[in-house]
Amino acid sequence: MAIPTIEWADGRIRLIDQTLLPNEFKQIYCDNVESVWEAIKSLRVRGAPAIGIAAALGAVLGIWKSEATNYDDFVSELKRVADYLATSRPTAVNLFWALERIKQTAAKQKHLEISELKKTLLDEALQIVEEDKSMCRAIGQHGLELVHNGDTILTHCNAGGLATSDYGTALAVMFAAHEAGKNISVYADETRPLLQGARLTTWELMQAGIDVTLICDNMAAQVMKEGKIQSIVVGADRIAANGDTANKIGTYGVAVLAKEHEIPFYVAAPTSTLDLSLETGDGIPIEQRAAEEVTEGFGKRIAPQGVKVYSPAFDVTPARLITAIITEKGIARPPYEIRLKELVAS
Amino acid sequence: MAIPTIEWADGRIRLIDQTLLPNEFKQIYCDNVESVWEAIKSLRVRGAPAIGIAAALGAVLGIWKSEATNYDDFVSELKRVADYLATSRPTAVNLFWALERIKQTAAKQKHLEISELKKTLLDEALQIVEEDKSMCRAIGQHGLELVHNGDTILTHCNAGGLATSDYGTALAVMFAAHEAGKNISVYADETRPLLQGARLTTWELMQAGIDVTLICDNMAAQVMKEGKIQSIVVGADRIAANGDTANKIGTYGVAVLAKEHEIPFYVAAPTSTLDLSLETGDGIPIEQRAAEEVTEGFGKRIAPQGVKVYSPAFDVTPARLITAIITEKGIARPPYEIRLKELVAS
Repeated sequence: MAIPTIEWADGRIRLIDQTLLPNEFKQIYCDNVESVWEAIKSLRVRGAPAIGIAAALGAVLGIWKSEATNYDDFVSELKRVADYLATSRPTAVNLFWALERIKQTAAKQKHLEISELKKTLLDEALQIVEEDKSMCRAIGQHGLELVHNGDTILTHCNAGGLATSDYGTALAVMFAAHEAGKNISVYADETRPLLQGARLTTWELMQAGIDVTLICDNMAAQVMKEGKIQSIVVGADRIAANGDTANKIGTYGVAVLAKEHEIPFYVAAPTSTLDLSLETGDGIPIEQRAAEEVTEGFGKRIAPQGVKVYSPAFDVTPARLITAIITEKGIARPPYEIRLKELVAS
Repeated sequence: MAIPTIEWADGRIRLIDQTLLPNEFKQIYCDNVESVWEAIKSLRVRGAPAIGIAAALGAVLGIWKSEATNYDDFVSELKRVADYLATSRPTAVNLFWALERIKQTAAKQKHLEISELKKTLLDEALQIVEEDKSMCRAIGQHGLELVHNGDTILTHCNAGGLATSDYGTALAVMFAAHEAGKNISVYADETRPLLQGARLTTWELMQAGIDVTLICDNMAAQVMKEGKIQSIVVGADRIAANGDTANKIGTYGVAVLAKEHEIPFYVAAPTSTLDLSLETGDGIPIEQRAAEEVTEGFGKRIAPQGVKVYSPAFDVTPARLITAIITEKGIARPPYEIRLKELVAS
């Protein structure tokens, strides 16, 4: 992406307000930790890796003007800021991973002056951004072997440059294939309720010059049945030790359909999305979103007043439906338990 | 329904404009066959049985002011009107069935004066409306045995009173169960792109006092996985001789998910929806709808200008995924070939 999804800008955070895309391209500034929390909660910045970056930069922003004069006070303040940011969204593990990394950095730097410590934490957050960029490129390169010339790939939600600092996870595979000269096409599920597929994935792919066709989520089965799809690639918000994968609501259904149509189903995600503390996906908390995102999402009420709504933001795809997991360190295939541990350790 | 979905009103057709629901309840008049064609095409009236009724009444409206003075001229005119109405939508067979029935009635009444013939055709169209009402009630009664006290049923699109003259097909099963004192709940898929589930099914069920929860289409898999659903009941637009069933796009995906979760999947439809001339569903034409229904459906553009869209209005669920077909003449179970023929003949 020519313009970064999210970046540190001289004591503030600048990010693309993704709720306005594709109708309006606008960068907004977050001047305090509350506005970072709000930007994550309301999906101005979204996608597991980008949420991690927002959290890391947000934690630094939260203590950037700290007036603490000793280490203990400063670290208490950092902990409060991190705990607060951790309440913004429950499912993507990158959020907690990034906050933990910032806290760990502080824990290791007791000897520094507060002003130096602030800079060290900022460096660590910027390091996460840089690592994210390399990680995305590496996922794209590893994924290359799974994409063949002439393939049409289906994806769900947006795991693109907008979901990361730069290049994406699931879309990285497509960008890399396209850049490697492979002729590919993409079907993008619109991804209700907030339409990240319709608004963001189509936009990114069109900008990259990749052939993309938009469908409603409920058309994916028919498109597969017609033989149009050679593989499915999606992102992830949290992956348990056994390979069970939480991702945007609807992913699990796509995986079931892939199995029915014997289409390979790939998850592309950095190892920071792995949560080896969870044996299976059963332990992954699933965020519930407000009814209005379903009933009034697009400037018009589409359901009767007072109707009950059930709106889980994510679902968990069991490992048995996942053909492979593409990480920045290589590809994992079932059984995942051993290979995922190896990748994390490598 | 207290107010009929569609009715003959003294030389005009009055119908509920379903594109405005649930925000606005408005009846509109069709004064000529062109406005009936437009009402069908733009889904002001929709649902296979209601489309059949609109076509029958529309054909009568088209020749109501005919100035033909002899039988042959009159029948030519009727044929032109019917051929024109037949171009409004391609998938629901009830449209062609109803037009054929009006033409057949004319063919049998050569001896009548033109003015008498007009009245006879109107009587036939009104007869279709009356039969539709009894048919819906009978589907509800036959379906009763498949619904148990405490069941939660998932449905897709709207196969309710608004899809028929009165009581519905899939929803008839729910209305009948509720009226029989069974405690049931319903999950309604919103049904993109035109949201008939969000707009119409929730509205009808809430009016009937039935507990209903709205979900996005891509949440159905998760709801099934959570064990919330005991059965699935949907309508049909055309059923081939082997039981393959065309219905609103997304139905096929729901059927695959039902199989994965071992949930019975029922189709509720009148025998007028059967097309025994087609051996399998492969021969059913699938209407493609305009891209704007996907990209601008919510009163706001939700995708980049110029994005490609694929938007089939229907899909075909193979008979192997259908547990039973509930008709007004009884329940058919696999293998469907013989039983469906028997039901049509009975």
